[in-house]
Formats: sequence, C-alpha cells, structure tokens
Amino acid sequence: MNNTSSPVLAPSRELEVFPNPQARDYSIHIEIPEFTCLCPKTGQPDFAELALVYVPDRQCIELKSLKQYIWWYRDQGAFHEAVSNQILDDLVAATAPRYMRLSAEFNVRGGIYTRVVVEHRAPGWQSPPAVELP
Amino acid sequence: MNNTSSPVLAPSRELEVFPNPQARDYSIHIEIPEFTCLCPKTGQPDFAELALVYVPDRQCIELKSLKQYIWWYRDQGAFHEAVSNQILDDLVAATAPRYMRLSAEFNVRGGIYTRVVVEHRAPGWQSPPAVELP
Amino acid sequence: MNNTSSPVLAPSRELEVFPNPQARDYSIHIEIPEFTCLCPKTGQPDFAELALVYVPDRQCIELKSLKQYIWWYRDQGAFHEAVSNQILDDLVAATAPRYMRLSAEFNVRGGIYTRVVVEHRAPGWQSPPAVELP
Amino acid sequence: MNNTSSPVLAPSRELEVFPNPQARDYSIHIEIPEFTCLCPKTGQPDFAELALVYVPDRQCIELKSLKQYIWWYRDQGAFHEAVSNQILDDLVAATAPRYMRLSAEFNVRGGIYTRVVVEHRAPGWQSPPAVELP
Amino acid sequence: MNNTSSPVLAPSRELEVFPNPQARDYSIHIEIPEFTCLCPKTGQPDFAELALVYVPDRQCIELKSLKQYIWWYRDQGAFHEAVSNQILDDLVAATAPRYMRLSAEFNVRGGIYTRVVVEHRAPGWQSPPAVELP
Amino acid sequence: MNNTSSPVLAPSRELEVFPNPQARDYSIHIEIPEFTCLCPKTGQPDFAELALVYVPDRQCIELKSLKQYIWWYRDQGAFHEAVSNQILDDLVAATAPRYMRLSAEFNVRGGIYTRVVVEHRAPGWQSPPAVELP
Amino acid sequence: MNNTSSPVLAPSRELEVFPNPQARDYSIHIEIPEFTCLCPKTGQPDFAELALVYVPDRQCIELKSLKQYIWWYRDQGAFHEAVSNQILDDLVAATAPRYMRLSAEFNVRGGIYTRVVVEHRAPGWQSPPAVELP
Amino acid sequence: MNNTSSPVLAPSRELEVFPNPQARDYSIHIEIPEFTCLCPKTGQPDFAELALVYVPDRQCIELKSLKQYIWWYRDQGAFHEAVSNQILDDLVAATAPRYMRLSAEFNVRGGIYTRVVVEHRAPGWQSPPAVELP
Amino acid sequence: MNNTSSPVLAPSRELEVFPNPQARDYSIHIEIPEFTCLCPKTGQPDFAELALVYVPDRQCIELKSLKQYIWWYRDQGAFHEAVSNQILDDLVAATAPRYMRLSAEFNVRGGIYTRVVVEHRAPGWQSPPAVELP
Amino acid sequence: MNNTSSPVLAPSRELEVFPNPQARDYSIHIEIPEFTCLCPKTGQPDFAELALVYVPDRQCIELKSLKQYIWWYRDQGAFHEAVSNQILDDLVAATAPRYMRLSAEFNVRGGIYTRVVVEHRAPGWQSPPAVELP
Repeated sequence: MNNTSSPVLAPSRELEVFPNPQARDYSIHIEIPEFTCLCPKTGQPDFAELALVYVPDRQCIELKSLKQYIWWYRDQGAFHEAVSNQILDDLVAATAPRYMRLSAEFNVRGGIYTRVVVEHRAPGWQSPPAVELP
Repeated sequence: MNNTSSPVLAPSRELEVFPNPQARDYSIHIEIPEFTCLCPKTGQPDFAELALVYVPDRQCIELKSLKQYIWWYRDQGAFHEAVSNQILDDLVAATAPRYMRLSAEFNVRGGIYTRVVVEHRAPGWQSPPAVELP
Repeated sequence: MNNTSSPVLAPSRELEVFPNPQARDYSIHIEIPEFTCLCPKTGQPDFAELALVYVPDRQCIELKSLKQYIWWYRDQGAFHEAVSNQILDDLVAATAPRYMRLSAEFNVRGGIYTRVVVEHRAPGWQSPPAVELP
Repeated sequence: MNNTSSPVLAPSRELEVFPNPQARDYSIHIEIPEFTCLCPKTGQPDFAELALVYVPDRQCIELKSLKQYIWWYRDQGAFHEAVSNQILDDLVAATAPRYMRLSAEFNVRGGIYTRVVVEHRAPGWQSPPAVELP
Repeated sequence: MNNTSSPVLAPSRELEVFPNPQARDYSIHIEIPEFTCLCPKTGQPDFAELALVYVPDRQCIELKSLKQYIWWYRDQGAFHEAVSNQILDDLVAATAPRYMRLSAEFNVRGGIYTRVVVEHRAPGWQSPPAVELP
Repeated sequence: MNNTSSPVLAPSRELEVFPNPQARDYSIHIEIPEFTCLCPKTGQPDFAELALVYVPDRQCIELKSLKQYIWWYRDQGAFHEAVSNQILDDLVAATAPRYMRLSAEFNVRGGIYTRVVVEHRAPGWQSPPAVELP
Repeated sequence: MNNTSSPVLAPSRELEVFPNPQARDYSIHIEIPEFTCLCPKTGQPDFAELALVYVPDRQCIELKSLKQYIWWYRDQGAFHEAVSNQILDDLVAATAPRYMRLSAEFNVRGGIYTRVVVEHRAPGWQSPPAVELP
Repeated sequence: MNNTSSPVLAPSRELEVFPNPQARDYSIHIEIPEFTCLCPKTGQPDFAELALVYVPDRQCIELKSLKQYIWWYRDQGAFHEAVSNQILDDLVAATAPRYMRLSAEFNVRGGIYTRVVVEHRAPGWQSPPAVELP
Repeated sequence: MNNTSSPVLAPSRELEVFPNPQARDYSIHIEIPEFTCLCPKTGQPDFAELALVYVPDRQCIELKSLKQYIWWYRDQGAFHEAVSNQILDDLVAATAPRYMRLSAEFNVRGGIYTRVVVEHRAPGWQSPPAVELP
Repeated sequence: MNNTSSPVLAPSRELEVFPNPQARDYSIHIEIPEFTCLCPKTGQPDFAELALVYVPDRQCIELKSLKQYIWWYRDQGAFHEAVSNQILDDLVAATAPRYMRLSAEFNVRGGIYTRVVVEHRAPGWQSPPAVELP
C-alpha cells in the first residue's frame, strides 16, 4: 500500500497513456456520466453522459488523466457534434487505438434530445469473427 | 463565455446548418417529443413524437433552428404521411446527408395509432461493416 | 384552418385512398385495437387487435375511411382466418401496395387464443438492404 | 343512433356541463396528455400532461367541451402555477363539485421538471370511509 | 355431466340471478374487457373495460346473463357517466348486494382518457375488520 | 426413512387431517394452480387457480388428501360461487380453523374473468397485533 | 346474425376442418392453456399449455372442433412425448399443412419441468424470405 | 404572444419570486437533475439531483431565476450537508412557504452514496386530511 | 486474523449460540435457500427456502452451527407444518429471543405449493414505535 | 477553487466529525456498497453492503474519514452481529445523533444470507409527524 501524498488533481487537456500490457485484441469499456460543458451561444451549462469503448494497440488511457481531461471541458464552450468529435480525436491522437467509439448523450434542451455517436477504425484492423459458444 | 442577449426565438420554416466538423461517418440521433400540427380536415390539433437519425456529409442541422422549424408546424394543417415526408425532404434539402431516417409516431385518433417511417440514402453511400468487439 | 362541418361518419365497406405524396419506399404502421365482429356460428361478438404495416406504391389508405371500414365489420359474421384474409385483400385491392402485412390477434374464446398473420408482396419488389449505423 | 352531422369543433373558453345522472358519491378520472400553451415570457410552446379527478355534485363536465377548453390554451401565454389554478377554478365554477383535484406535469424546461397539484373540497363534504373487502 | 343443447345466446336487458349459496360475507370479482356501446352524439362505437366487485346478500348474478346484458349495450347510445351508473343501478336492483363497486375505463377519445368509478353500500353493512396474519 | 410402497392415489371427497403439532397461532399458505371441474350447464371443463391460507387450531389438512379432494372435482359440475364456498365449508368442517380464506381465480369464459374470495373466522379469534421490527 | 341453437359440445377425437379461404402462405397461431390428461402410470391428472402455429394448405382447423379434440384427452392416459407427437400427427393428418409446429409445456411433476416441441414440414415447401422494412 | 428578446441568463445568487396566484393550499414539485458544485477540500466537481416540493404561501419561486441560482453553485465549494441546508434556507427566506422539502442525491464519491433530506414547516401550518375517493 | 484449521463440518442437531454483544433491540435477518429433508410418507426429497428474522435477547445463533443444524434435516423425514414449528422451537429454546419469525416456502409437490409461517413473541416484549424520518 | 494537495488516505479507526450547520431535524442517507472484513474463524474475506441513515444533532460524520474507517475493517476479523453493532456504536459515540440506523447486508456464506439492522434513538427525541401534501 502506497501512503505517500496523492497527486493534486486539476482540469487539464493533457491525456496520459501507459503501455498496453498485451498484444491481443481486447476491449475496454468506460462510462462517464458526469460530463458538463457550456453552450457556446448562451454560456449556459450543458450536461451529457459519455460511453467510450476501445480496442487498444500500443497505448492505454490512464484513467485519472481521463478524469482531468473531461473536467477541462467544465468551463469550455462546445457544440454537441464538435465536442463529440473532438474528444474522439484527442483520444485517438493519444492512444492510436485499433478501434474506438464514443457515444455522447446530451440532456434535453428546448424539448430536443440529442445523441452523437462517432467511431474510429485503424486502417486494416478487422474485428475478430463472432464466437458462438458451444 | 458569451453572455450577450440570446436571439429571439420564433416559428420559422428556415433550417440553419453549420459545416460538419468532421469528414468521418458518424451518426446524430435526435428525439423530438413535442411535435404538434393541425388536422387539415377538422382543424383540430394533432400530436406526434419524432425520432431522427442521420449521418451528416458536409452540413449539420443547427438545433435551435430545428426547434423553430418544428414549431412552425404548430399552426399548419398536415396529413400524417405528407408531413413525415415533407420534414425528411426539407432536412435532406438543407443538409444533403449521407443517410437520414425519420420516424413519426402520432397520438391515437379515432381509436387508430399511426407511425410513419421514411428514410433517405445518398447514392453510393454504404454503411460501414458492423464491428464485433473482442 | 378549416372549421367547416366535419363529415358524418358511418360504417362503410368503401375504402378511400389518396395519392402517395412520395415515390420513395417508406413504411406506414397502423394499430387498430378496437376491431369487433360477430361469430358466424353463434352470433356472439368477437374482438381483435389488428396491426397493419405497408409500403405504399401510388395510393395511401385514408384513415377516417379505414376507421369506417373497420366499423363495418361490427355487425358482420366473420371467421378468424377468413376475415383476416378479407381485410388484407380489400386493402391490397384499394392501394396496390409494394408490401403489406396484417396481424389479427383475437380475444380468447373457449379457452383458445388465436392470431392470424397474412402478407402481400408486389411481384418484383424487394426490401432495401439493412443499414448499419456508424 | 344519431347519424346527423357532428358539430364543428373549435377552441373555446366555454365549459359545457350536463346534469349529473346520479345523487351518489362517485368519481370521474380524466387524463389529458395533450395540453399545450405558450410561455408568457418567450412565446415558446409549453407542453403538459393533466390528470383530473372529481366527485360531481349536480353537474358533470361534458368531454367534447373540455377538449375545446383545453384546446383554447394552445395560443395563450400561461405560467405553470397560474394556469393550473386557473383550470381548476374554471372547472369548479362550472360544476361546483364535491371534490376535485388537478395535477399538471410540465415537460422539462431549462433542465427543470415541474408538477403542480391543486385541489378543491366543497365545504362539509367528506369522503366515504374505506371499504375492506372480505 | 349434462350434455344437452346449450341455450341460445342473445343480447338482453334481463339480468338473471340465483340464490346466494352462502350467508357469510364474501366477495366476487368480475372483469369484463369487452364492453362496447355507441356514442349518443355521433353514433360511433365506444369501448371500455369494466371491473366489478360485490359482496352478495341473497342473490348472485348469473354470468351468462351478465354477458348477454353487457352485449345488449352494443347497439345502445350511452354517455360514460350515465352508463356506468346505469349498469350499477341495474345490478343493484337485480341482486340487492351488501356492497358493489364498478369501475369503467373507456378507450381514449379526442385525446382524453376517462374512468368512472361508482359504488353502492347497503345501509348498515360494514366491511369486516382487516386480518393481520401471524 | 419410510420406503414402503406409496399408497394408491384416487379422487376422493374425504379430507384427512392430522393433529396440529403446535398451540401457537401460525399460518399455512397453499396454492393449487391445477383445479378443474365441469360447467353444470354445458358440461364443458372449467379451470381455476386456488389460493388458500389458514391459521389452524387443533387440526391441519393433510396435503395428499387435499390433492385427492381437489382431484375429485374433475368430474363434478360446479358453479363458481357455490364451489368456492363448498371447498371452504368442507375445509372448515374438517379442521375447525381459527381463520381460513380461499381465493378462486377462474379462467376467462365468454370474455368474462371471475374471482371468488371467501373467508371464515372462528368466533372470538383475533389476529395478533402487527410487529414493527427495529 | 344467426341465433339458432348452438351445437352440443362434447369431447371427441374427430377434428373438423374447413377449406382454407386463401392460396397465399400465411400463419395461424393458436394457444391452448387448458390441456389436461392423465398419467398412464398413476392415473393422476397432468396439465400442459400447448402452443400451435401452422401455415395451412387446403384445410384449416375448425376451432370448436379443436377444443373438443383437446377435451377428449381429459380422460386419457398419455405420456408427455407420445401425446405431443400424437396431437401433431392428428392435426397434420386432418389438414395436411405446409408447415406446423406444436410446443407442449407440462406442469412440474416430481420437481421436473418438461417441454416437448415437434414440427412438420411439407415436402418442397419453403418459407418466404424475410422482409427488411424501409 | 410576446416575441421580444429574452433576457440574458447568468449565474446568480438572487432568487426572484412572484405573487402566488392562489390562497388555497397546493403543492409544486420541482426536479433539478443538473446540480453541480465543487468539493471544498479537493476542488473537484460534485454532481447531485435535487428534488424540491413546496406549498407556497404568498410567494412562488420564479423558475428561470431558480435555474440561475442553481447555476451559481457551479463554481462554489460546498459540503453535501451544508449546501442542502443552504439551498433550503435561501428558498425559505425568499418565499416563506407553508411547507418545503428538499432532497439532494449526490453521485458516488470514494465508493459512498449520500442523500440529504431537509424540510421546513411554517409554524401552525397543517397538511389537509387525506381524501379517500369513492 | 485467525488461520488455524477450520473445524470439521458435519450435520448436527446442536445449535451453538454466542452472547449478544448488545442490549438494544435490533433485528437479524437470515435467508436459507438450501433446506432439504425427506417426505415421511414416500422417502422422497423435499426442498424449501427458509426466511428467519429475530430480535435477540441474551443469545445469538452461531451461523456455522445453524448451517449444520439445517444440514441435519437432509436425512430426516419431516412434515411441512411440523418441521417449520420444530425449527422455530429449537431456535427459541437455544436463544430465548425477544421476537422470532420463520417462513418456510416448500417447492411444489403434486401440483401444490405450501408456505408455513410461524412466530414467537417473548411475553411483555413490544416492538418499538415506527420512525418517520424528516 | 482550492487545488492544494489532498490529504493522504489510509485505513483508520478515527472518525472525524464536523459541526452540524443546522439546528433543524433533517436526515442524511449514506450507502456503502464496498464493506469488506475477514471471517474471525476462517480468515476468509466477507463482503457486505451498508446502509446508514441518521438525524444529526451537533455533529456530522466527515465522509472521507468514514471511508477510511470502513477501510480499517479490511484486515479485521469481525462477526456479523458484532461488527454491525460496533459500527453503530462508533458512529453514535462520534456524533451523538438524534437518530441513527444501520443495515448491513452480508453476502451469502455457506448458503446462508444474513442482514443485521441496528438503530439508536436519543432519549426524548421524536420523529416529526408525517405530512400529507395537498
């Protein structure tokens, strides 16, 4: 058990990664129900739930760093479509995954519910064929 | 953060768009539970829930403008089949999407429930192959 | 808004249609939970829930006329299998759809539950390939 | 059976009543999922689901007239609390019931859900004691 | 076992009763999901589900006769409140029960759902105290 | 362990009892989903689910005997209300319980669902006060 | 409406059929929750729920006759597997359907639940390809 | 309908009220799923869902002002217990209600879920007796 | 942490207890889904789920001993009512609780489901009044 | 926003408190799904979900300290009844609440599920009467 002082947490655009301990294809599923940013037109808060899944290649996302990255948007103005693509782009740039998909489900605004789903596929990567268990 | 006066909202047939911030295929899911128009035969109010999904190409639909567009039908006479096709046509004309589908579920009238489902596929566009996660 | 007197409603075997406002393939789903007719053997009332879906070609079914058509069966003797086929035949004759399916779920009689499912496919019509959203 | 022309429907603040066919205490439960009015500040549409229950005294509410009364609000500006009390007041004035309760559940606005519950009790009226069935 | 010809069924306002085989308080619960009558204003069909419960005194309702009684309304014009009270009145007149309650839940009409609940208590009858099982 | 030949089972009106092994108030809940008898008017089979609960005094119902007793009705004509009271009367006569309640839920016949609930309370017996656990 | 005397019902092994009113492929789904027979070893009652679906060719099963056929088993000894196959064989012999499947779900006996599923396919018959609605 | 410019929204500790349009006891239920503040110890974001119900006396809470008041906490450090009491105190000070209750359900932190429930009762106010509908 | 050899487990009628560490009223809820014994008439296995709750006085039931006690019934013939009372008696004898209730739900046998509920109340003990949380 | 170093976390029997910011009666509900300790007999891990609710008097429990206190049990041997009472005793000693209740639901061990519920009531404290909202 490590009892030294835990590092100070602060919002940050930096995404830390660590080496993927495995060469095989496997999937990491992450749910982030506490995303909030600001509407660029009115400055009012927006809220969303993010669902991320990816198949890592050489790098994995460090989770405390991901928390700080999500936190960074708290004071940023961001359109639904743009911020969903931006988060995927940043995560792809940091980890170069074999596959990654982000679904962002925004709280209702003006009586309208919006969900944006973006995905990245590394060139040449193919998902393994489905397994039908005996 | 921009705190200047928010623009006045009013019903409008105009659909504003903005440039799609991404070239990749991704999907935008929009639910509009507050659609209302008038029956062209009797003048009485009709109500429906709309579910829209699309894969944008160069243009995305601006949501506040979509709200005003939906609002515009509040005083219009409209048959179920015609208005469902009209909304899809208008949205396709404004955004030229790669794919778009609209489902309109109307409240019961005369003991009959009606749902109309219309879709548009850009010539040559194909949906990406399904991914089977490991 | 048209506020003139609404037409008088009465049971009728006539099915009114109107020109399909669109050339594209799309589907119309109609649920009719209030179907009732008479048992041809005993004269006692029978009840059923009808679910109709169709892809129109040149004609759509006018809903008020459909309601009157359904109403017409209220005083008719009708066997389960025959009436299900008869309704589909009448709707196909009136609208010549690309595709149509009718499911009729009858209330329990003598401890037995019956559901009849009938469909029509226009020669040469093929349903569009499934779309896998990104 | 009366098959003459049905009367023209139009929005109206008038509430028609008819004589209660019974002297006993009994309850009438009415759900109106299609209430819509306008926000008095912004002019934008508001939507609500109304649930009404009452124990009539000498008058009952005529349902077609109630539909037209609800329709009348479609073009009126109305605050949540005021309109809920106004509807109850109008219904009480028209029918002088022994008991009446209205619950109005408004669609989310600005991330906030509101429900207003108002009730009227005629002086001296008491609900009957509960029955415990053998 | 009696295999002679079953009696002919026909709609009828007559309610047959038979002597209650017991003196004790007990309850009979009856659900009738297939009630239909006509709207007295428009002549169009109305549908409802009836739930009846009663504590018989000297007479019980004969079920086949109840079915024919319900069937009788198929061609009658009837307002929601009046018909609910009428059915209770007829059943009370035929059986003089210790307690009886009728709930009539009508299908949606004009976007409005209605349920009418009426009950009869014989003077001096009291429901037995609740039992708390060990 | 007794491994001698199991006794032959046959339908029987006899109800066997055995001495209640306890003086305290306690409850025995028995569900019998497989009750069937014949309609005395038409000779056709009827089906019901029985739910029995009782607080025994000096005698308990022997279950195999109860099964044979229920089986005995398989070839008997029986009206809903009469058979429910008859079964309770027989069980009370056999066991003289402190409290007993029988609920009989009959399968739908002619579109009508019926449930009969009968109970017996021994004079002077009172259910124990409810316990509120800390 | 035919109000003459309804025919006497009695258990019978005869299955009546009537000419299929249609040449097209369609399906008839029948649920029979009230099947009962006797265990051939012990003579005790067995209970099952039957689910039947078929695509008729030239003959349809008459439902009242089916009820009498099911009733016939009430006094017959029958093993689970044998009776399921026997019923399918009898129905196939009577109607020569294009396709038929019977599922028989027996009530628990000795702590064991049993379901038997049997089907028949007419030589050369093929089910139509699935339709993907637009 | 008033279509002039809507007022600029900004976070604010001010709570606007408006005169209660009614003297009767009635209840207003408000759900606020988008509350967020900062942990005073670590500066990290906290999230909660607030449920408010009150019986107004002379003043009602203006909803847009409530939204801005909730928004104000976005950049404030606040302990769970203190902020729940603070919000109730502010709302009571602004509206002097007859009754008010606030429930604040905080998202999980360190594996621990917390909900704080606070209420205010005006001296001498009593809730009306419950109504048992016939 | 005590890592000495765990004692050998074996079926046993002995019930071990340990001193209740507290004087206050509190409740211990124990669910035992794996009770099995033998039918005294046929020698066949019976299965039941036991639910026990008690307010201890000076002694608590040791759980491993309870498991062995339950295990002991595996080879015992036991009637439903007798064994339920026997288990309660043994537990009361061993712990002299302030309150204890046992519910035994037996698996279906011969199409009949049985549940026995027995309880013990120490003379003079009263459950504390219910708490209504603010 | 305070971004200085967060304090080091470690298991600890110390419970920190802070002054209750309010004099009124209110309730704090805390769920702790991650409690684990060791079985004192076998040394094997035990798991439980704790649900705590209390009405504070002068002191509230500091949550981070509560987390460390719960963490402390990870390496302690603890019987179910004793540890539930011990935790309540420690929390009562630290905060002297007006009311406190702890429910500890332990994972199945040896086929037996156990839940212990303990509560503390300060002498003379009474819960407020229930409110019936209009």
